[in-house]
Amino acid sequence: MVGRIVIRGGLVITASDEIHADVLIEDGRIAALAASGTPAAEAWTAERTMDATGKYVIPGGVDAHTHMELPFGGTFASDTFETGTRAAAWGGTTTIIDFAVQSVGHSLREGLDAWMAKADAQCAIDYGFHMIVSDVNQETLKEMDLLVEEGVTSFKQFMAYPGVFYSDDGQILRAMQRSAENGGLIMMHAENGIAIDVLVEQALARGETDPRYHGEVRKALLEAEATHRAIKLAQVAGAPLYVVHVSAMEAVAELARARDEGLNVFGETCPQYLFLSTDNLAEPDFEGSKYVCSTPLRPKEHQAKLWQGLRTNDLQVVSTDHCPFCFVGQKELGRGDFSKIPNGLPGVENRMDLLHQAVVDGHISRRRWIEIACATPARMFGLYPKKGTIAPGADADVVIYDPHAEQVMSAETHHMNVDYSAYEGKRTTGRVETVLSRGEPVITEREFTGRAGHGVYTPRSTCQYLT
Amino acid sequence: MVGRIVIRGGLVITASDEIHADVLIEDGRIAALAASGTPAAEAWTAERTMDATGKYVIPGGVDAHTHMELPFGGTFASDTFETGTRAAAWGGTTTIIDFAVQSVGHSLREGLDAWMAKADAQCAIDYGFHMIVSDVNQETLKEMDLLVEEGVTSFKQFMAYPGVFYSDDGQILRAMQRSAENGGLIMMHAENGIAIDVLVEQALARGETDPRYHGEVRKALLEAEATHRAIKLAQVAGAPLYVVHVSAMEAVAELARARDEGLNVFGETCPQYLFLSTDNLAEPDFEGSKYVCSTPLRPKEHQAKLWQGLRTNDLQVVSTDHCPFCFVGQKELGRGDFSKIPNGLPGVENRMDLLHQAVVDGHISRRRWIEIACATPARMFGLYPKKGTIAPGADADVVIYDPHAEQVMSAETHHMNVDYSAYEGKRTTGRVETVLSRGEPVITEREFTGRAGHGVYTPRSTCQYLT
Amino acid sequence: MVGRIVIRGGLVITASDEIHADVLIEDGRIAALAASGTPAAEAWTAERTMDATGKYVIPGGVDAHTHMELPFGGTFASDTFETGTRAAAWGGTTTIIDFAVQSVGHSLREGLDAWMAKADAQCAIDYGFHMIVSDVNQETLKEMDLLVEEGVTSFKQFMAYPGVFYSDDGQILRAMQRSAENGGLIMMHAENGIAIDVLVEQALARGETDPRYHGEVRKALLEAEATHRAIKLAQVAGAPLYVVHVSAMEAVAELARARDEGLNVFGETCPQYLFLSTDNLAEPDFEGSKYVCSTPLRPKEHQAKLWQGLRTNDLQVVSTDHCPFCFVGQKELGRGDFSKIPNGLPGVENRMDLLHQAVVDGHISRRRWIEIACATPARMFGLYPKKGTIAPGADADVVIYDPHAEQVMSAETHHMNVDYSAYEGKRTTGRVETVLSRGEPVITEREFTGRAGHGVYTPRSTCQYLT
Amino acid sequence: MVGRIVIRGGLVITASDEIHADVLIEDGRIAALAASGTPAAEAWTAERTMDATGKYVIPGGVDAHTHMELPFGGTFASDTFETGTRAAAWGGTTTIIDFAVQSVGHSLREGLDAWMAKADAQCAIDYGFHMIVSDVNQETLKEMDLLVEEGVTSFKQFMAYPGVFYSDDGQILRAMQRSAENGGLIMMHAENGIAIDVLVEQALARGETDPRYHGEVRKALLEAEATHRAIKLAQVAGAPLYVVHVSAMEAVAELARARDEGLNVFGETCPQYLFLSTDNLAEPDFEGSKYVCSTPLRPKEHQAKLWQGLRTNDLQVVSTDHCPFCFVGQKELGRGDFSKIPNGLPGVENRMDLLHQAVVDGHISRRRWIEIACATPARMFGLYPKKGTIAPGADADVVIYDPHAEQVMSAETHHMNVDYSAYEGKRTTGRVETVLSRGEPVITEREFTGRAGHGVYTPRSTCQYLT
Repeated sequence: MVGRIVIRGGLVITASDEIHADVLIEDGRIAALAASGTPAAEAWTAERTMDATGKYVIPGGVDAHTHMELPFGGTFASDTFETGTRAAAWGGTTTIIDFAVQSVGHSLREGLDAWMAKADAQCAIDYGFHMIVSDVNQETLKEMDLLVEEGVTSFKQFMAYPGVFYSDDGQILRAMQRSAENGGLIMMHAENGIAIDVLVEQALARGETDPRYHGEVRKALLEAEATHRAIKLAQVAGAPLYVVHVSAMEAVAELARARDEGLNVFGETCPQYLFLSTDNLAEPDFEGSKYVCSTPLRPKEHQAKLWQGLRTNDLQVVSTDHCPFCFVGQKELGRGDFSKIPNGLPGVENRMDLLHQAVVDGHISRRRWIEIACATPARMFGLYPKKGTIAPGADADVVIYDPHAEQVMSAETHHMNVDYSAYEGKRTTGRVETVLSRGEPVITEREFTGRAGHGVYTPRSTCQYLT
Repeated sequence: MVGRIVIRGGLVITASDEIHADVLIEDGRIAALAASGTPAAEAWTAERTMDATGKYVIPGGVDAHTHMELPFGGTFASDTFETGTRAAAWGGTTTIIDFAVQSVGHSLREGLDAWMAKADAQCAIDYGFHMIVSDVNQETLKEMDLLVEEGVTSFKQFMAYPGVFYSDDGQILRAMQRSAENGGLIMMHAENGIAIDVLVEQALARGETDPRYHGEVRKALLEAEATHRAIKLAQVAGAPLYVVHVSAMEAVAELARARDEGLNVFGETCPQYLFLSTDNLAEPDFEGSKYVCSTPLRPKEHQAKLWQGLRTNDLQVVSTDHCPFCFVGQKELGRGDFSKIPNGLPGVENRMDLLHQAVVDGHISRRRWIEIACATPARMFGLYPKKGTIAPGADADVVIYDPHAEQVMSAETHHMNVDYSAYEGKRTTGRVETVLSRGEPVITEREFTGRAGHGVYTPRSTCQYLT
Repeated sequence: MVGRIVIRGGLVITASDEIHADVLIEDGRIAALAASGTPAAEAWTAERTMDATGKYVIPGGVDAHTHMELPFGGTFASDTFETGTRAAAWGGTTTIIDFAVQSVGHSLREGLDAWMAKADAQCAIDYGFHMIVSDVNQETLKEMDLLVEEGVTSFKQFMAYPGVFYSDDGQILRAMQRSAENGGLIMMHAENGIAIDVLVEQALARGETDPRYHGEVRKALLEAEATHRAIKLAQVAGAPLYVVHVSAMEAVAELARARDEGLNVFGETCPQYLFLSTDNLAEPDFEGSKYVCSTPLRPKEHQAKLWQGLRTNDLQVVSTDHCPFCFVGQKELGRGDFSKIPNGLPGVENRMDLLHQAVVDGHISRRRWIEIACATPARMFGLYPKKGTIAPGADADVVIYDPHAEQVMSAETHHMNVDYSAYEGKRTTGRVETVLSRGEPVITEREFTGRAGHGVYTPRSTCQYLT
Repeated sequence: MVGRIVIRGGLVITASDEIHADVLIEDGRIAALAASGTPAAEAWTAERTMDATGKYVIPGGVDAHTHMELPFGGTFASDTFETGTRAAAWGGTTTIIDFAVQSVGHSLREGLDAWMAKADAQCAIDYGFHMIVSDVNQETLKEMDLLVEEGVTSFKQFMAYPGVFYSDDGQILRAMQRSAENGGLIMMHAENGIAIDVLVEQALARGETDPRYHGEVRKALLEAEATHRAIKLAQVAGAPLYVVHVSAMEAVAELARARDEGLNVFGETCPQYLFLSTDNLAEPDFEGSKYVCSTPLRPKEHQAKLWQGLRTNDLQVVSTDHCPFCFVGQKELGRGDFSKIPNGLPGVENRMDLLHQAVVDGHISRRRWIEIACATPARMFGLYPKKGTIAPGADADVVIYDPHAEQVMSAETHHMNVDYSAYEGKRTTGRVETVLSRGEPVITEREFTGRAGHGVYTPRSTCQYLT
């Protein structure tokens, strides 16, 4: 490891500040920041100096929602922890929080152990785990306490996928009550899966089997309904709530209403909801299958309300829900039956760039870019002050970002292990140049210089967003 | 001036970060931050070292709403720029933005020049000016453009005080339209003064002359109404809007509603609305007059909604509206007629402490304390990156704050030039120890070490809050 | 049967008019109305003349929600169709719509036949049936179509009572879709029973077994949640929705919100929610059990919002949910376990009087009294123009009501077959004097002159409220 | 006068009932209704029998908002009381409430006397007066009390038209306070005229002089703002409020919000807002001037929200705001300057037909047609039980309406004294056949059989809508 690095001359951007400063890294941590050109800065010597003149120096991205190697519908998400975290690094993300899965009839521990084993020694960047709770019972509730103490401080439940991940309202309430006591944070997939399954069955019976019907049956109203229900259950439990992958403007409205009432409810959206739409789902020749994920893509008019929610802080986080399946052989499982298309999109490599494009397009400010992509996910899930900021004492997870470079997104050039890009051909401005993970260059001037196993498992504190 | 100072061992708090760092100051600016105890930090030498172990190191407060020497009702606010800014420094505030006043029939320039002269060479800390626009006409509108270029980038209008500061809706619309073009920010005193004057006349006619009737006639509904009206006029003009001294929960609701619709409307509240109530206005023996200000104090139940608004960012700033009048000889002008009581409270010295108490009480987080009292007012009014944060390159406006010290607020010990404290006897936890203004110690371990004239006029950029 | 009756000199009140008119009845129907004292009126001769001078002449009440002989928790509601309809007549109600119950595993038809048999030849007044749908499946859905054609045009589902009446969201959606096609109206018991059952279990485990805990576990938020969910499911289905026994102000707010969006959702409340509260549930010595019903009584502050909802037409109907259980032997089943207390209150005899008291108290107008108690339930459930109004051609279901008489409600004097009154000792102004059912006097100057079997089953049209 | 008339075989429609009944008229009043074909009905003999088989028998329309002969912008509305009330009769309206105007500096009495003189012996149908209050002062306030006692029980104020009818918020508050005491009802023209005048000036300065700019400068937001403001002032005064000619969906939303809070605020809209739009204002060749009225026509998407408001009772009344100006010589005054186009549209003859078309189109039910056009205006303005219903004792203001006849609206065939129709060429279903005013046929099988002077001035009670 390089002991001492100085990054010179960049514009350091955090959630609250934009400063022209040099950054000194010692032993994998940010040691100091000094105003560029001052004696204090000039005095620094280092084994390695990186020139960031004309560039941004930003915290490495924190992607709080990925699903590497997730088993789904008889197949597995196509990125392993190795390929997925490498792609993340290419995209300027230095931490992921993936989801360990409890299977029904098994303990949380078993699920966590299995996922720890999958990730062990594979990752190019640091990682943590949320826990998917599929089977709420007395044992599970006790295990939640233990996991919180160990650093698995967030638990995902599903109001969708009956028979698989689904929890009923009683199970949700019990888990929320427990989290209100142990400090864990409930993350909710908020769609009324029971009602949706009726609509799926009816659509298929009518011969509506194309991918676009995936978007029609998973109605925005049923996302909004479940969002409202989750909020009310959290209110009864006295617990905060984090709603994942919000895609419908009606769901944003529910979050806004709850927040106006003073409730601690939080919302995450994903780049696919901000940049893609049901137009993509309707692409011919089964191309629409590439865009099948749940919650589904929505009509274009929802996008403006999602951007607004990000500006007004009714939405706090942008994660990817990265869960890639190849078009060939995987998405194709659903030809003739949209309900058999594996749900998920690739995106872990694209998030930081797409959100920078949003800065360029005027949707958000630069500081808000860092806040929703780095600082807030770190705080929300207890990774602060190690992750999410550039400040003395923090891990030296740093990205040198060229705000002027142009690129074209494409499966031909991306590093995710999937045979298509959801943004094929999209031109964006801004590009990751160099990425440090705890001071270690994992991308160096657009070459991968990291390695599987550099990334370490990172236990997490409880939610720091409100403190 | 001391050329090089190091503050060692404190917890540096900004709007987004809390880090254990040493702060290096060179030539009146923050030169660098380094993690305490690291070689980088240890390497620093300085002419002066301050020990902040166990203390907070925070940006100097930015009080965006003061009225030193304001003429009102035949008398003048009792703090001069000299006494008022000295008291501000005692309270950990290092920048004020006061209000220059245009008189009807005169130009903006005349008003600004007069106020510049009043402040010149008097201030212990840096200062800027908003402009009160009392007479909207073609000349005034043109002058607004010039003032924005010169650094007076915000303009206050009044929907209250007919015959004095009052602007009608047409004048407001014209000024908002202009500000939409020149980047100025309209600040609004939102009370329906026309309707209130009817209620005042009727109350006096009924013999209701005590101070508490001041609170009864200036109804919360009429604040909410004016807030809504100002929002709609700003929407028509396509301009952002900053509503000053929001006190009624119904007005907060209007701001929240507008923000949910995506409008760029902002709200400021003041410590008196957060900590005092109509109970104070009802104090016997004319003591209630001490608490007469407009908008007025509200019943206690409004406080929770104001705190909530500060948490959900429906309110963005806490300023003081510092405008002191002595009980003896000034407040007494209104004995027998509450409408003749000079409107205003002292508070410039108390703000940072009261808001720290709110941290102790659990209303807000430490970071939010700095955000609403330092960072956001600086950004809102174009003082960033000089003011409002502790970051390399910023002015070294720094407060060493002891979070554990206890104090009792009292007119006997405060430094404002007024014969009462609105918080007499209130015990708070937390106390300013040392204050630097551009690196110059103006308070040193609770002694005033500054001087009139150290503070300089600071021109401002246009609003940076959304960028 | 008396062929020709004239009611002279009363104030005839309908949902829209209050007129001084004589009413001519021929062959069980309203034949004509004539302005009192006019030649047209004077010309009438009749076999029987009733003097209504100083009295109101109003349509017989339509109670759209009763449960005679309902099996619940191992016992039966204590009023039979005979005793219950007699008591209804005493209270000025001339039509009830009771609920036939489908048991899980059985057909709708079986349930309807069983309830038809129970009521046959027993009733003092006319009656119809809604159908409780406990088991939604393909057969049930087909049967719904048939029942609508036969005059059972409304179907109740339960979001509460898992394992008994409960339907999941998919079953609800399917039934709503069907009703959107066949014109049936879905009536919803809107409480999140799954979540409530968790709270019940937890309360009992904590030793909270008294009746008042019934009110605490069945939280207002969980009624509001279910109300919102039912609305969204109805919106997805494109069906109107009628929510029964709304008790929580938060649920009224959901109805109001939906109606503001233009949705056809309707709400019913009951006298117990308007006049009683959790104070009653907390009465000592197990007296609280008398007030156990679901949805439960709420804290007093909810009452004002229910009255408001009735005034603004966010609530359209007041029914009783009459479902009496004797204190001795029935309510007592729940001593030591509130969850075993049979749910229900007596009220069919009290409704018209309590609502007249609301007129006296200024909550509603006289016309609104008739609208919510007679006209709207008749229209909502397809009984118009036979029921709910006094107009030529309508059934001569007529009440002569003394608006000045005073009475005291008491189990000692009421005619319901239950050993307590929920309103014991309550003094009200106004009293039923005489009641005609299709021209037949069933109550004559406060004597029962009817008979079991006079009342006939009345098939109903589909909802006429919006036409 | 024919002493005794029977109308046989029609469908009698009131706000709450639809019955097949014969109607007996004696001495100008409804004497009796009897179910058609019953002995009671058959027994009637009459001097004149009208056959209404296959027709509707409805109350004569009550148009609560007309401006006959109104002086405006240097000219006069082109219908006199003679021509205007004759046209009203042709359109099935049997009562108008016109507006007497107080001029600034004059008393209410002077204005009322002047308007009484204009109408005296001219009208074909009955009429009453609201009072426009242009000059609120102590004398005016006292006069309001007297006028209420005399039967002028409603008072209109303007938030628009500064310098003409305009009242400031203090004057409005005072009048509202007075009406809260004396039972008068304040009617509000809710547009922010002060702000609008700025926009008018700016538009004209930009050369935007065509009629369509009339719609652009009188912004929906400024109608909504004034509506909200009027509501808040009424809330402060504790008075009910009736907002006239609501045209913007945002204003409907304000009314809905206030009603959800339980406030007694009412809204009127007009046929032009329901059937016409800014598309008409944009018609070339100055044709747009025909559609200039204030509040202005709105874009088409507002119509759906107005219909919804009428269905949910957030709007209660449809009046015409009939105020015709000929295209030639009158509307033309505003060529080259839209602000000089006399404001107003003809419509008194079209209202009942247009609203019946709304029944045909499915916007409202038949009963709601009668409620918004007859019953509610009668109740709202104290004309009940004489007007607005068909019930024994009411004035025999009766229309026989053919629901199947088709007609085409046109200036060539209409009876209003104006050279264009706002609905030229519009085909509607339904037509007035015969109209009785207090038993006197004024239209008989589509011939005018009335006379100037038949109509009498009708003093009014205070608002009966809530009783």
